[in-house]
Amino acid sequence: MTERLVVIGGDAAGMTAASQAKRLGGDDFDVVVLEQGPFTSYSACGIPYWVAGDVGGVDQLVARTPQEHRTRGIDVRLHARATAVDVQDRKVSVAGADPVHFDHLLIATGATPLRPDIPGLKAPNVLAVQTLDDGAHAIEVLQSREPDARDAVVIGGGYIGIEMAEALVRRGYAVTVIDRAPQPMTTLDPDLGRLVAEAMAGMGIDVVCGVEVEAVETDDAGSATGVRAGDTTYPADVVVLGLGVRPATELAREAGLPLGETGGLRVDTHMRVEGHDRIWAAGDCVESWDLVAQRWVHVPLGTHANKQGLVVGSTLAGRDLEFPGIMKTAMSKVCDLEVARTGLGEDEARELGRDVVTAKIETTTRAGYMPGTKPMTVKLLGERSDGRLLGAQIVGREGAAIRIDTCATALWAQMTAGQLVMSDLGYAPPFSSVWDPVQVAARALLAQT
Amino acid sequence: MTERLVVIGGDAAGMTAASQAKRLGGDDFDVVVLEQGPFTSYSACGIPYWVAGDVGGVDQLVARTPQEHRTRGIDVRLHARATAVDVQDRKVSVAGADPVHFDHLLIATGATPLRPDIPGLKAPNVLAVQTLDDGAHAIEVLQSREPDARDAVVIGGGYIGIEMAEALVRRGYAVTVIDRAPQPMTTLDPDLGRLVAEAMAGMGIDVVCGVEVEAVETDDAGSATGVRAGDTTYPADVVVLGLGVRPATELAREAGLPLGETGGLRVDTHMRVEGHDRIWAAGDCVESWDLVAQRWVHVPLGTHANKQGLVVGSTLAGRDLEFPGIMKTAMSKVCDLEVARTGLGEDEARELGRDVVTAKIETTTRAGYMPGTKPMTVKLLGERSDGRLLGAQIVGREGAAIRIDTCATALWAQMTAGQLVMSDLGYAPPFSSVWDPVQVAARALLAQT
Repeated sequence: MTERLVVIGGDAAGMTAASQAKRLGGDDFDVVVLEQGPFTSYSACGIPYWVAGDVGGVDQLVARTPQEHRTRGIDVRLHARATAVDVQDRKVSVAGADPVHFDHLLIATGATPLRPDIPGLKAPNVLAVQTLDDGAHAIEVLQSREPDARDAVVIGGGYIGIEMAEALVRRGYAVTVIDRAPQPMTTLDPDLGRLVAEAMAGMGIDVVCGVEVEAVETDDAGSATGVRAGDTTYPADVVVLGLGVRPATELAREAGLPLGETGGLRVDTHMRVEGHDRIWAAGDCVESWDLVAQRWVHVPLGTHANKQGLVVGSTLAGRDLEFPGIMKTAMSKVCDLEVARTGLGEDEARELGRDVVTAKIETTTRAGYMPGTKPMTVKLLGERSDGRLLGAQIVGREGAAIRIDTCATALWAQMTAGQLVMSDLGYAPPFSSVWDPVQVAARALLAQT
Repeated sequence: MTERLVVIGGDAAGMTAASQAKRLGGDDFDVVVLEQGPFTSYSACGIPYWVAGDVGGVDQLVARTPQEHRTRGIDVRLHARATAVDVQDRKVSVAGADPVHFDHLLIATGATPLRPDIPGLKAPNVLAVQTLDDGAHAIEVLQSREPDARDAVVIGGGYIGIEMAEALVRRGYAVTVIDRAPQPMTTLDPDLGRLVAEAMAGMGIDVVCGVEVEAVETDDAGSATGVRAGDTTYPADVVVLGLGVRPATELAREAGLPLGETGGLRVDTHMRVEGHDRIWAAGDCVESWDLVAQRWVHVPLGTHANKQGLVVGSTLAGRDLEFPGIMKTAMSKVCDLEVARTGLGEDEARELGRDVVTAKIETTTRAGYMPGTKPMTVKLLGERSDGRLLGAQIVGREGAAIRIDTCATALWAQMTAGQLVMSDLGYAPPFSSVWDPVQVAARALLAQT
């Protein structure tokens, strides 16, 4: 018997689930995807590199077009905005179209950019970078104002903020990054965040931290001319919003589905919405279980969305696959500075009552005598009692960030510092020192446990 | 009470143990190191990059000089060749000097290069690359014969062989690599070894496999002019021996210490020689326990030597540290081709009676749309029954090999393909695809279990 799976949202989580259900289940599923925009399966993470000029055009950021999905038997409906979910009668209302009945519903509505509550945000040269439409619009505005434009202000010093800072530096702007926190990259501990701030300053980026943005100032034509923060106005020919996101769960809330404290949908390890057998949720609109902190968190990343979508599609098709949770692993870069982290930060570990010890070492990405070797700082966190790893952070130049995967895998497997010291990692002079940078840090951590 | 630790061999294992014992134990230990050559604590792995011109001079390959060790209180004796060990009376005979009494003895005598039993090997332009002396001599010979020299033959297509092939290509030679195996890099499965052979051919390296070297041909002056293998003579202005090594355990054998089938010394997890409380061994002269194959193997690598030395020094000083074993993790490169492996190969897994499944995927090192993204092939091996990982192999271009560390950590922690698929690895477009290359392979493996 064919069952209808309706998916709200056609990006990573939604389309992965749709594809997997169709691939494994075939005619068992009649799959309808309601996507409010014009694109499917795209990489929003690629927008900064599109703006920077690394990516030729929007097509390159689309992993699979609506037409490609349709040839695989998925009924993709574009510009189709779901306006309500009737859990009881199993139907989704769609703006300007007939309601759609479902046997199974996947809510993959993503996230909504945070916008500060300040004047001037509607100016045409204040740019968001959340969707491909945003990206295309941003590039249009930048092009129309160049080459006269000189100054850019980025509001927010997190991942998107620093990546957009790089993009604007590479387009020739004098860039100011403003963040209310004492330093950029608050997902790092303050000591490593300081390294990022210093490196950004070294690149000529003006990093203004610890101040609140009060207003985007505009001229008579309504265009932004500057950003006021603290007692200063920072001139701006363009302003970029990089403030993070919140779960887009209005539809779910109105349907009476359970939301957690973060505002994200509550799901089990199969991505079923709590208390509902036939309603699923995945991607930026859900809460995820933090395996290290042992609590629910909202971490909107494409990696989780893809995995969660795979779990939904596989489970629907009768395969046993679970999404166990996350560890807040992330990586980013600004120009040639690479940043990566996983697990708990120092403050978070203390707040959770862990008796945490830390080790921070400076080393190099290759054997010290090799050309192209670059400096990197590794910080590891562990339990004092037994050296169990709690987290890792890396700041360095080319080749540094990727080593977070070694740390993340060790953390995932609940390894101790001692086990990491003795583990059999690869070595050759062009790739590593004979003690891998991660093991140098693990040795320093071990000495304290 | 001060105890005397005598160390035979002043490279990675010996000097790490000596340093750690002295650092932790201080005046508890009177440490004497007998080193037969003129150097301590050097990176033999760096020799190919010295020959290639990446490394300025021998000093750069010496991590710590004899004098630096001496200022830390270690009695380093150079050109001191141990000729016998008296286990009963606890003393080491030294050529041309008084015997040295020990309370504890560490045998860190390293390994000896394999030399084929063929005529012509004594020619002055047949080069070994095992010790720093070898490296200095090789560079002298190369320089004295350039720029007339044009052809080079490397005997052996393993790690040293391909690294020396790169070095010679970069010095302008037309290079032939000869190996008796059907393809180079026999630590890889044949399908990945073939990729290496093809890539080397694409670099203009003549890869001659499946033939035995019969002779180094010499001219009237005794210089090598070519290498005969199969029915062909390959012209050679220089010949490089890259055939691997065997444990240097003659001294240990004569002292009646236990050797395993590989010829390496038998040790426990604290690196004590079996049956001897006060005799230790570490580095290229010992056997190591293969954690995946569950058997003793001889894997001469600096990574193991350093860890084993640390274990000896720490244990002597009363710290609890054990060397649990290895997984045959290794990485290398030839020009811009990177190669890495860990765990069991396919044939080895079958030979050990494992019901092995494999997955091989082709992907890219960064998001497909990013500039600088490079192709890579990942092969994973796992148990059919539960997807437990058994091994991993990677062949690719810049940025590929380092991902073996993710695989090695997962293998170390006995993770399954399913766990690796769901683990929280880092992602950003400049570093990875949204499914990390390793996870793409793990998905393919999971589909077969």
